[in-house]
Amino acid sequence: MRVGPDEALAIGVDFGTLSGRAVVVRISDGAELGTGVHAYRHGVVDRRLPGSEVRLGPDVALQVPADYVEVLRTAVPEALRAAGADPGDVVAVGTDFTACTMVPVTDDGTPLCELSRFTDRPHAYAKLWRHHAAQAQADRINDLARQRREPWLGRYGGLISSEWEFAKALEILEEDPEVYAAIGHWVEAADWIVWQLTGRYVRNACSAGYKGILQDGRYPSRDFLATLDPRFAGFVEDKLAADIGQLGARAGGLTEEAAAWTGLRPGIAVAVGNVDAHVTVPAADAVEPGRLVAIMGTSTCHVLNGTVLREVPGMCGVVEGGITPGLFGYEAGQSGVGDVFGWWVDTAVPASYQEAAAGRGLDVHAHLTELAAAQPVGGHGLLALDWESGNRSVLVDHELSGLLVGLTLSTRPEDVYRALIEATAYGTRTIVEAFRGAGVPVEEFVVAGGLVKNDLLMQIYADVLGMPLSVITSQQGPALGSAIHAAVAAGWHADIVVAAKAMGGRRRDLYRPDPARQAAYDTLYAEYRWLHDHFGRGGSDVMHRLKDVQRRALGVAS
Amino acid sequence: MRVGPDEALAIGVDFGTLSGRAVVVRISDGAELGTGVHAYRHGVVDRRLPGSEVRLGPDVALQVPADYVEVLRTAVPEALRAAGADPGDVVAVGTDFTACTMVPVTDDGTPLCELSRFTDRPHAYAKLWRHHAAQAQADRINDLARQRREPWLGRYGGLISSEWEFAKALEILEEDPEVYAAIGHWVEAADWIVWQLTGRYVRNACSAGYKGILQDGRYPSRDFLATLDPRFAGFVEDKLAADIGQLGARAGGLTEEAAAWTGLRPGIAVAVGNVDAHVTVPAADAVEPGRLVAIMGTSTCHVLNGTVLREVPGMCGVVEGGITPGLFGYEAGQSGVGDVFGWWVDTAVPASYQEAAAGRGLDVHAHLTELAAAQPVGGHGLLALDWESGNRSVLVDHELSGLLVGLTLSTRPEDVYRALIEATAYGTRTIVEAFRGAGVPVEEFVVAGGLVKNDLLMQIYADVLGMPLSVITSQQGPALGSAIHAAVAAGWHADIVVAAKAMGGRRRDLYRPDPARQAAYDTLYAEYRWLHDHFGRGGSDVMHRLKDVQRRALGVAS
Repeated sequence: MRVGPDEALAIGVDFGTLSGRAVVVRISDGAELGTGVHAYRHGVVDRRLPGSEVRLGPDVALQVPADYVEVLRTAVPEALRAAGADPGDVVAVGTDFTACTMVPVTDDGTPLCELSRFTDRPHAYAKLWRHHAAQAQADRINDLARQRREPWLGRYGGLISSEWEFAKALEILEEDPEVYAAIGHWVEAADWIVWQLTGRYVRNACSAGYKGILQDGRYPSRDFLATLDPRFAGFVEDKLAADIGQLGARAGGLTEEAAAWTGLRPGIAVAVGNVDAHVTVPAADAVEPGRLVAIMGTSTCHVLNGTVLREVPGMCGVVEGGITPGLFGYEAGQSGVGDVFGWWVDTAVPASYQEAAAGRGLDVHAHLTELAAAQPVGGHGLLALDWESGNRSVLVDHELSGLLVGLTLSTRPEDVYRALIEATAYGTRTIVEAFRGAGVPVEEFVVAGGLVKNDLLMQIYADVLGMPLSVITSQQGPALGSAIHAAVAAGWHADIVVAAKAMGGRRRDLYRPDPARQAAYDTLYAEYRWLHDHFGRGGSDVMHRLKDVQRRALGVAS
Repeated sequence: MRVGPDEALAIGVDFGTLSGRAVVVRISDGAELGTGVHAYRHGVVDRRLPGSEVRLGPDVALQVPADYVEVLRTAVPEALRAAGADPGDVVAVGTDFTACTMVPVTDDGTPLCELSRFTDRPHAYAKLWRHHAAQAQADRINDLARQRREPWLGRYGGLISSEWEFAKALEILEEDPEVYAAIGHWVEAADWIVWQLTGRYVRNACSAGYKGILQDGRYPSRDFLATLDPRFAGFVEDKLAADIGQLGARAGGLTEEAAAWTGLRPGIAVAVGNVDAHVTVPAADAVEPGRLVAIMGTSTCHVLNGTVLREVPGMCGVVEGGITPGLFGYEAGQSGVGDVFGWWVDTAVPASYQEAAAGRGLDVHAHLTELAAAQPVGGHGLLALDWESGNRSVLVDHELSGLLVGLTLSTRPEDVYRALIEATAYGTRTIVEAFRGAGVPVEEFVVAGGLVKNDLLMQIYADVLGMPLSVITSQQGPALGSAIHAAVAAGWHADIVVAAKAMGGRRRDLYRPDPARQAAYDTLYAEYRWLHDHFGRGGSDVMHRLKDVQRRALGVAS
C-alpha cells in the first residue's frame, strides 16, 4: 500500500497526568485533522488502591498501566473518526509521556500490579511523576554522590530528584523488597507504551539521560549503588539497562495486536518514546539553541537546546541529544503551577464568587482573573512562594512547601490568586537567571501548554521576565511533537529540524513587557528571591521540620 | 422613691465594635434579668463616608457617634422590657466601650462629623480602635520618645500604638489641620457616652492611663510634643486634659434628656466610663492579682492585676488603678483573633463546605471546627503568624501581616482554620511568657468573650499554654462588669472587690491540658517563636516593605 506525500498522516499520542490524547496530523504541513481524548479510568491513585482498603500516605501518587492501553484502544480510533481519515494513510505513530513515571514489570513487560499476588501492594503500581515519597532515598543518593564527587551529579544541577528512576526504585527495595525482587525491568512509562505498540523494549535517550542518570554512556557505578545499599548493587544491570533509542528513530513496527487496538496498519513505524515536555520543542519550531520552551500546565517544564555543555545550579538536567540529536538539551521545571491555581480555586474560593462567576457565564478561574487583572502591581500587598508541590528547580527539594505573606483582613481570593500567579512567574525568572548565570543563553521565551489561554498570566510573565513571550501555534503541542517524531521515524522528513520547520510553529512576541510594571516587579522579585533563598537554602529550615512533624503526627512513613 | 436591697437593679451597657448591648442586672447577686442589643446603623465605616463618595484608604476604620446614642434609646428600653423590670428599680447605669476609640468634638461635646461643613471629612468621624492609618505618627512618637528616654515609654512595653490617642490626633493634625483646629476635646468614646448620659465630661482613669499616656499624674511634656510638630505643642492642654474619674466612681446623675431616651429615672448614678476588656475582670470575679482575664472575640485583650510595677516588653500598658483602684493593671492584646477566623470563613471556604455545613445544620465555623478537631497536633503541616490585623503585643507593630507556611496541594480549609486558631494560641502564650519573664505572675488563665463557645479552640489554648483554663460564668461579661461598676458608683456595694464577689463569677479549670498534645505543641511553638522573631524583629523586613509597595501601588496615604 502506497501513500502519497500529500496524504501521509502521522498520529501523535500524548499521555498526560489524567488522560491521553491522540491527534491525527498531516505530515506535509502539520495540519491537525482530528483529536481523541480518553481520561484514565483510575486517574491518579493517591488515597487507596483500586478495589482495596490499603490507604496511601500523603506523598504517594500511583497509576494503573492498563489505563494507558485503554487510550490506544479508544482515543486513537476516535481521532481517526474525528479526522475523517483513512487509517491506511497513517504511516507512523509517535508517543510521549509524563516523566519520570515508572512502571515495574516482569521480564515480558507485564506490570507487577496485574499479578494477583501484588494487586494490594502499592509498590507494584506505576509511580506517577509527582509521587514524592522517595525524598529520603533521594537525599541519600545526593549525599553520597556529593561525598564521592560523582561526576554525573553536576549534570543534574547538583541534585537528583526524588521523582526519578533511582530514588523511586530504592524506595521499593527498602519498603517492599519482595516487589523489588519481582521486577524484571524498571521501565519508563514512555518506553512501556512503545513496548506495547512494537513488542520491543527500547529505552529512549531522553528519559534515560534526564531521569535515569545515563551520562556519556554510563550509569552510576555498581560500587556507588552498593554503598547506598548492598542489595541495590545490581540495580542497573538487573532492572534498568536496555537498548537506547535516539529521539526520532524508529523503535519498531506496529504489532498485529496494537494494530487491532488502534485500527491502524500493522508494521507502520513507531517512534522511540518521548517525554511530553521535550517533544513540544519541535512542535513549537523551537529546536534552535537559545529558544526556551516553557510548557505551562499543572506543572511547568522548561526545555532548551544549547551548543555548549554547562552545569547549571539546580537544573533538572543536561543531556546530549536529550531534546534533539546533536545538541545539549537542558531541562528545568516548576513542580506546581496550574495545580496550585486549581488548588486555590477548589479549596479557597467562597460560594459568592462561584455564583458571581456563574452569573456572568465565566468559570471561577476567569472570574478571579478578571478581578485580579484590575489591580496595580503590588496592590494586594502579598508575596507567595510557589512551593505547594515542592521545588523542582533551582532548589530541587520536594520537602519545601508553599508560603503566603502579607495577609490582612482585607485580603480577597483574587488577591491570593494573583499572588500565586506572580509567584510562579518569579519562579520562572529564577530559572531563566540560573541558565544565563551559568552561560547558557536564553534568547527567546516560548510558551506552550494550557495556561497560554490566560491573558493576565501571560502578561504577568512578560512583565516579570522583562522579555516578550512567543506562543506555540498548536494547542496540542506534545501530541504534535510526537507526530513530528513519528514522521521522522518513518523517513518522511530528513530529521527533526526539518520536520519541525514543516510541521511546527509559534507566534512571536505576542506579549510584550510594560516598562512600568516590569520595574515594579523587579522590586517584588527581589523580595521573592530573599524569601526563596531564606526558606530554600537553609536560612530557615522550618518547612522541613513541619513536614517531619506532620509525618510523625499522621503516623505515615516518609 | 426608695428601692429595697433585693429589688435594686443596675444597667450595664457595653458598646462593642458593631453593636451595643444593655443588660439589666440585680445588684444583690448579679443575676442578669434582661438584655437588649442594637446594631450600629453605620457599622464600621471603612469604604466610603455615609452619603458621600469620599473613598477611604485600606487602614481606615471610622464610626458615627450618633449610632452610640441610638443604643441608649433602643437597647436600654428593650432590656428593661425583656427583664420585665420596673424602671423605677434601676438605681445606676454603667457603661463600657471599645478602646481606643476616639471622638473629635466641639467644646460642648458635639461630634465634628455632625457639623455640616465636616460631613465629608474622614477625620471628623470617630476613629475606631482598629483604625490603623496613624502608624507613621506612632513610629515618630516612639522614635522621639526612645531618643529622649521619656520615662513613660517603658510603661507601654516600649511602644506607643498607632491605635491610641496621641498618634490618631497627630494624624488628624497632619492630614486635615482644619478639622484638628476645630476640635474642642479629643474624647474617648467611653467618656463621650458618659458625657451624653450625665451632661458632664469626666475622663476615666483607665483610658487616660492606657491610651492617653497619663502616668504618675502627668502627660507627655509640651516640649516633647513641640519637637514632634510645633503645631502639636498645646495638644494636651487644648484637646486632651479633663477631670479624671476613678473606676467605680460616680460621674454624675442621669440627665432629663438621657432619662427620656432610656426610660430611666433622672438623677440616678452614672458610673465613670470603662473599657470593655478591663471591666470584664470584676465580672469574672478575677480582680485578685495573678488572674489573667483574656477577653477573646474579634480581637483578644489580656488584662491582669499585679501588686508590683514592672515594665513588660511589648505590653500595651501598666496603669495604677487601671483595672481596680489600688492595684497595677496590666494590659496586653492580640489585634486579630475571631476577626481572622471570620475572614477565613468568609473569603476562603468553598461552596461545598457551606453546603456540607448547612446539610448538617451547622454554621461553617462549627463544621470546620469539627473537621479540624479530628486532626492530630501537627497533622496539617502548617504554621501561621496571626498578624492579619497587625501585632498589638509583644511587637506592637500594625504594619506586620499574616503569614502561612507549609501549604501543599493537600491543604484543606479546615487545616488552615486550625492553623489560624493555633497561631492565636501561640500569640497568647508569647504574651503570658512576656509577663512572667518580667516578673509579673500569671497564676490563672480566665477566658471571657464569644470564643469560649468553641471547645476545640479552648482545648488548643489549654494545650498550647500548658495551663488549665477557667471560664467566666456570664456570657455578657463587659455589660455585667459595667453594672458592677454602676452598683459601686451608686453605693450599693462597698467597692469593686466586694461587688465582684457578689455579682461576678467564673468556673475554674474547665479545660485541662493533655500532656501529649502539650508536648507536641511545645515543638510547634518553638517554630512559631522563630518565625515571630524573624519577621517581627527585623530578621526580615519584608512585611513592612510589602505594605510600602501596596500603598504606593494603590496611591493611598499611609
